[in-house]
Amino acid sequence: MKFLLAPDSFKESMTAKEASDAMEYGLKKVFPEGEYVKVPMADGGEGTTRSLVDATGGQIFKEKVTDPLGDPVEADLGILGDGKTAVIEMASASGLALVPREKRNPLYTTTYGTGELIKKALDHEVDTIIIGIGGSATNDGGAGMIQALGGALLNAKGDPIGYGGKALEHLEKIDLSHLDPRLKRVKIIVACDVDNPLTGHEGASYVFGKQKGADLKMIKYLDDNLKKYAQRIREDLQKDVEKVPGAGAAGGLGAGLLAFLSAELKRGIEIVIEYTGLKQKMQGVDFVITGEGSIDAQTRFGKTPYGVAKVAKEYKVPVIAIAGNIGKDVEVLYDYGFDAFFPILHGVQPLEKALIYGKENVARICENIGRMIRLLQK
Amino acid sequence: MKFLLAPDSFKESMTAKEASDAMEYGLKKVFPEGEYVKVPMADGGEGTTRSLVDATGGQIFKEKVTDPLGDPVEADLGILGDGKTAVIEMASASGLALVPREKRNPLYTTTYGTGELIKKALDHEVDTIIIGIGGSATNDGGAGMIQALGGALLNAKGDPIGYGGKALEHLEKIDLSHLDPRLKRVKIIVACDVDNPLTGHEGASYVFGKQKGADLKMIKYLDDNLKKYAQRIREDLQKDVEKVPGAGAAGGLGAGLLAFLSAELKRGIEIVIEYTGLKQKMQGVDFVITGEGSIDAQTRFGKTPYGVAKVAKEYKVPVIAIAGNIGKDVEVLYDYGFDAFFPILHGVQPLEKALIYGKENVARICENIGRMIRLLQK
Repeated sequence: MKFLLAPDSFKESMTAKEASDAMEYGLKKVFPEGEYVKVPMADGGEGTTRSLVDATGGQIFKEKVTDPLGDPVEADLGILGDGKTAVIEMASASGLALVPREKRNPLYTTTYGTGELIKKALDHEVDTIIIGIGGSATNDGGAGMIQALGGALLNAKGDPIGYGGKALEHLEKIDLSHLDPRLKRVKIIVACDVDNPLTGHEGASYVFGKQKGADLKMIKYLDDNLKKYAQRIREDLQKDVEKVPGAGAAGGLGAGLLAFLSAELKRGIEIVIEYTGLKQKMQGVDFVITGEGSIDAQTRFGKTPYGVAKVAKEYKVPVIAIAGNIGKDVEVLYDYGFDAFFPILHGVQPLEKALIYGKENVARICENIGRMIRLLQK
Repeated sequence: MKFLLAPDSFKESMTAKEASDAMEYGLKKVFPEGEYVKVPMADGGEGTTRSLVDATGGQIFKEKVTDPLGDPVEADLGILGDGKTAVIEMASASGLALVPREKRNPLYTTTYGTGELIKKALDHEVDTIIIGIGGSATNDGGAGMIQALGGALLNAKGDPIGYGGKALEHLEKIDLSHLDPRLKRVKIIVACDVDNPLTGHEGASYVFGKQKGADLKMIKYLDDNLKKYAQRIREDLQKDVEKVPGAGAAGGLGAGLLAFLSAELKRGIEIVIEYTGLKQKMQGVDFVITGEGSIDAQTRFGKTPYGVAKVAKEYKVPVIAIAGNIGKDVEVLYDYGFDAFFPILHGVQPLEKALIYGKENVARICENIGRMIRLLQK
């Protein structure tokens, strides 16, 4: 019996690797001789670095960079098992979670730290950098990121404009002549699951500005600044990224990555499927077990269990999904390659306890799934 | 595909019948052509009347009787589908739940209402009365019960002693000559899951007195009264029930039923298995699904899922159990005929919500159990 165990992390309870270990622990009670292929997964969001590193036997380096407000912060840089691919999450350096609610202000928050983290990746002589760009605290269009990498954003006097969404008001020239030369030899792949353009009512400022601390007046101002920024990019770099789907991701970091680093934007789950080698690992598998903290109808829009089920379906392998929370609307997922869903909670308990007992609960439900499989094979 | 659905009630959430309906609802989504044998179960405790009536297509009658403190109360009298068997729960007439905490006092609480309920059963011309005796508020040795049925308990002056555990102090004579004559033609079967004798440190007063409102001094006094009561039974009826296992159940009601009505004491689950015809219904069944609000290692001491699994094992039918709460120690049950356990909670929620969504959750888990079965049959 060969199992492929490919969960995402169970947020605040266990990493994807821990979840796959717990799955194996439970199943082994029933199939001690079973074959277990553990593939910690992610969808490009939080935990992607950890999962890709775990899935490939890579390593995580703690790097000192600059947080959204200019203070030092330790961010994760993942180097995959191949030694040639770096993976970072912008939120690790420039994320909303790094800024206390009362200090959130996209006029000043900068993606500078994300640029520094890219630089650290270059120090590892990788040929590919995967960047997850969810959860940003910023609305600077990726200006800080390119400033950290040697790009010069200048005002009318030829002086640097400074950092944050407000500084863009005075942007008159973009000069990339001193950009880190190693960037030319590196492929940048961006895990991006939103299709928002850089500007306008569907753009970065209007759609995501509020959660980052902007009021309506500030949103309009930030949007105007990003329009000006797009105009400069058009004129100085001969690139038009303003309306490209995904340009508005992470406060416009998507646009910056497209414009300055010729990044390729892909769905997070597709990147993870590719770099974990999920398809190759599907060979000869009898059952796939996936899971995530929460699964509901939204899961079909690019979440990990959906991606895993899609691949499994190609290979005609049955998929069982487990979760701490299974939405009532989960039924629609039966059409997307899922065969059955099982909840992991073994009793009424407050969330904090449910999180503590996550691994144990995953092991228990997987043991019982294994028992059903064994029972029905007789 | 033939399923036997034999749950107990899920306390405070649904009756056993409602649970079996929810199981069927979920499974039918997967096996619309399946055969479903629904057997609402119980273990002799709370809900036994309802389940036996539901399982046999009987009827429940609401009967006005006397509560433990002498006030009127409406109690349930079940007549099974055969029309020949009555089922009552002593707690329905004389239960602890009928007495507010501050009024609990086993010096005065009486089983009189239970006797009245037996009388009501006799009015239905049944030939068997099943009596569940858990959850009593009383410590009167079943004195009230026999008083209601025409038995005379007299003091030295030849006057009735009155009611409750205190009154027994003055008992000098038991006279059954005016007992309801119909009792002679009726078989009394008592669902009793405790082995306590009537008196002594393992007896009714010492083991169960405290929860009924007695302090240590009162417990000793009540125990002395029950000893006197046993002595009278020996002398006047030539029966010795003092040390019979189960005599101490329900504040000594067990002793009264043995002494006055020649009752047969049996394990509750055995009675329910017999009167639901569970064994006969096991024929040709592919899967048994059982369940209860809570399942843990204690379940093996006579709880419904244990009884169901035991019967299923005889017939070599696989058993899947579901519950709202599944204890960590449940693993020991794998040796008792259980094949797998699945929890019904689909997310973290407070108990009151979990209770409200019980049926829906049972249906959902059973649908997924059905999907596993279908998947593995391919």
